Amino acid sequence: MNISVNYSGDYNQLLTSELESKLKAIHKGIHTKSAEGAEYLGWVDWPSTINQEFLEDIKETAKHIRSTSDVLVVIGIGGSYLGSKAVIEALSTPFKKQTDLEVIFAGHLVSGEYLKELITYLDNKEVTLNIISKSGTTTEPAIAFRFLQQYMEKRYGDQATSRIFVTTDEEKGALRSLAIEKGYRRFVVPGNIGGRYSVFTAVGLLPIAAAGYDIEKLINGAKIAEQEFGVFDTKSNSAIQYAVIRNHLYNTGYPVEIMATFDEKLTYVQEWWKQLFGESEGKEGKGIFPASVLYSTDLHSLGQYIQDGKRMLFESFLMVKSVPSDLMVFEAENNGDELNYLSGLSLHEFNMACHEATATAHLDGGVPQLTITIEQLDEQHIGHLLYFYMMACAFSSYLLDINPFDQPGVEDYKTNIFKILKKPGY
Amino acid sequence: MNISVNYSGDYNQLLTSELESKLKAIHKGIHTKSAEGAEYLGWVDWPSTINQEFLEDIKETAKHIRSTSDVLVVIGIGGSYLGSKAVIEALSTPFKKQTDLEVIFAGHLVSGEYLKELITYLDNKEVTLNIISKSGTTTEPAIAFRFLQQYMEKRYGDQATSRIFVTTDEEKGALRSLAIEKGYRRFVVPGNIGGRYSVFTAVGLLPIAAAGYDIEKLINGAKIAEQEFGVFDTKSNSAIQYAVIRNHLYNTGYPVEIMATFDEKLTYVQEWWKQLFGESEGKEGKGIFPASVLYSTDLHSLGQYIQDGKRMLFESFLMVKSVPSDLMVFEAENNGDELNYLSGLSLHEFNMACHEATATAHLDGGVPQLTITIEQLDEQHIGHLLYFYMMACAFSSYLLDINPFDQPGVEDYKTNIFKILKKPGY
Repeated sequence: MNISVNYSGDYNQLLTSELESKLKAIHKGIHTKSAEGAEYLGWVDWPSTINQEFLEDIKETAKHIRSTSDVLVVIGIGGSYLGSKAVIEALSTPFKKQTDLEVIFAGHLVSGEYLKELITYLDNKEVTLNIISKSGTTTEPAIAFRFLQQYMEKRYGDQATSRIFVTTDEEKGALRSLAIEKGYRRFVVPGNIGGRYSVFTAVGLLPIAAAGYDIEKLINGAKIAEQEFGVFDTKSNSAIQYAVIRNHLYNTGYPVEIMATFDEKLTYVQEWWKQLFGESEGKEGKGIFPASVLYSTDLHSLGQYIQDGKRMLFESFLMVKSVPSDLMVFEAENNGDELNYLSGLSLHEFNMACHEATATAHLDGGVPQLTITIEQLDEQHIGHLLYFYMMACAFSSYLLDINPFDQPGVEDYKTNIFKILKKPGY
Repeated sequence: MNISVNYSGDYNQLLTSELESKLKAIHKGIHTKSAEGAEYLGWVDWPSTINQEFLEDIKETAKHIRSTSDVLVVIGIGGSYLGSKAVIEALSTPFKKQTDLEVIFAGHLVSGEYLKELITYLDNKEVTLNIISKSGTTTEPAIAFRFLQQYMEKRYGDQATSRIFVTTDEEKGALRSLAIEKGYRRFVVPGNIGGRYSVFTAVGLLPIAAAGYDIEKLINGAKIAEQEFGVFDTKSNSAIQYAVIRNHLYNTGYPVEIMATFDEKLTYVQEWWKQLFGESEGKEGKGIFPASVLYSTDLHSLGQYIQDGKRMLFESFLMVKSVPSDLMVFEAENNGDELNYLSGLSLHEFNMACHEATATAHLDGGVPQLTITIEQLDEQHIGHLLYFYMMACAFSSYLLDINPFDQPGVEDYKTNIFKILKKPGY
């Protein structure tokens, strides 16, 4: 189980002794938890030190939710929702079976129309809520929860208590107090893991398990990644490779990274990746702007710009080697569509050919190319992949001399909105 | 019914006499159809010259499809699908009624899993197909059509013919020949309108009407826009204003435009906009890179980068003044979530405050701000808005001395993929 990083340039040439030293220091800082922002390095050895009892508890809770509910409404925003959404979408089939437990997200947007219609939609279904917020006072999820909590109490009366699960800080915060007062079951957002690094904690695991996916395998993939990327070897550690290459490109005139995939199921892995890298690196006037495209549809859209537009882009493909199910182009009696020359080609092979055609053409057009390849979309490989990106992001940020774990701009926004809305004390 | 463009800088100062002359020449070139790429300027007076019989025909066909089908599968890619998808999503409610005709898109992606599951999903529903492709040989939709046409023939036998609608070139192409041979009902992609400017032709109108929306009102909005933006007045023509401002920002160090909205229903208007501008402008090493965010969710994600990352971004908000349905924050007995200070505030007002907080903070952070405001999301205002963007895009491209109507990079890709797959003749 490997993640390969393929680069259109010469990676080895980038590894000056100065850079090797810097990477070694970063590696040490991460693994001895002495780097800047060290108080948020809890994610690094989380997979290998995860408490088995905690995992069993999540699995039991998920089983209970699945046996009593048709819908789990997950209320969260940013890092409190993108991780589980990314994993669930990557593992779901395009047209979901109606009998499965449905996970619906709320609280990431503020919309009366959405909430009203959601409540109507819930009316003939059995419902459980999971509110995820470290402080409980982030405005968007708090608003959604106020309405949905009221709905649950009206509908289920005293039984609402057993249908509301709270994932929040262990020791403090408004949501914690509320949960204790109401008697809601609590799960913990670890204090030493920030939102965008929290997919392997209860934040991600409860919704993922409730959706029916195997969180043991997910964590196992992350654990393998923890071991793999814990080894300091700039020739074989693909998280370091990815960080070094993108940092080099950034420093040589390519401030925009386009992550490209051929699989629609990876759309939210792309959104999660944008938050991870954008929010970790985008500080002090620095950082790569993360954008995403979905091929081949966007080859008939942004593809033109990527091929011929302003030269400041590099492209990183996220490719999956094998697909769960495929079709083969068949010979048609009438070749009116001129496709018979493709007879016997599988649609996955078509996409692989597309990747080759695109990467070659974009490189010719002045867009440096990276390809990250994983074997398949299952729990273990996704766990491995997400940990890979988190580790690469830490390296990448430290290479820019940026603390990957704060988000002063987001905190400013949270404060600004309190001021404009005249929250007492602001 | 106006589209206002609000800019954080001084617009009037940008209007040098040199620029006024250039704009006047561009305006003349567009409206006398003498500008570069003139053979694709058919969209300019399309709304005012649209054939009423044609509109009636589309409406009758849509009515027939609605009365005989549960699902319309639309097969297209790029400009053959983004326009109708954008309009349908903008007008749909978040949780759709199960009884409405469902429009499902295929052919924008190549995926065996998707096609297989789509076919299973269709099995207990009545189905109509609409394949949209000018030539009929664009590979992705052609592949999807080969499978779905086979499915329809197996399932409906001779009756399949009356359930397949083809939107293609009037005079030539593989799909036209196939349609004639099979006896499929045909609609026309006008020869003088390119894919990304085709939303008001049969390409967009048939799926939009089949989804149950009022295409007369949509066209009426476009017609009002055609009149409004046909007047050369740099002080009041907001399409010119938008083009001038973004061109100025591009020339002064802001090559990335982030289109921001607070309404999830506008996500595909953003995708349509990215194709429109990216594919029109992104040539000869020039053009603004179009990216998009959805607030307030992305304020807890890319918001950090926008606030503090590398300074090369400007932001253009697309705001909608009024919403179809709203909720008001209510006073809670228990103020554990600390939200009582918002009592009486509607969720739409919350988003407006968010916009104010965000625009102010991002401007302070060095991100020039534009706000485009429309009244509401209905057919007429969307028709008006899409025409506004098309006209602004033409001006914007000509200001860069770029022909807005070709796409050499996309054509290269189409040829490349034929070569790699060894299509006879390539």
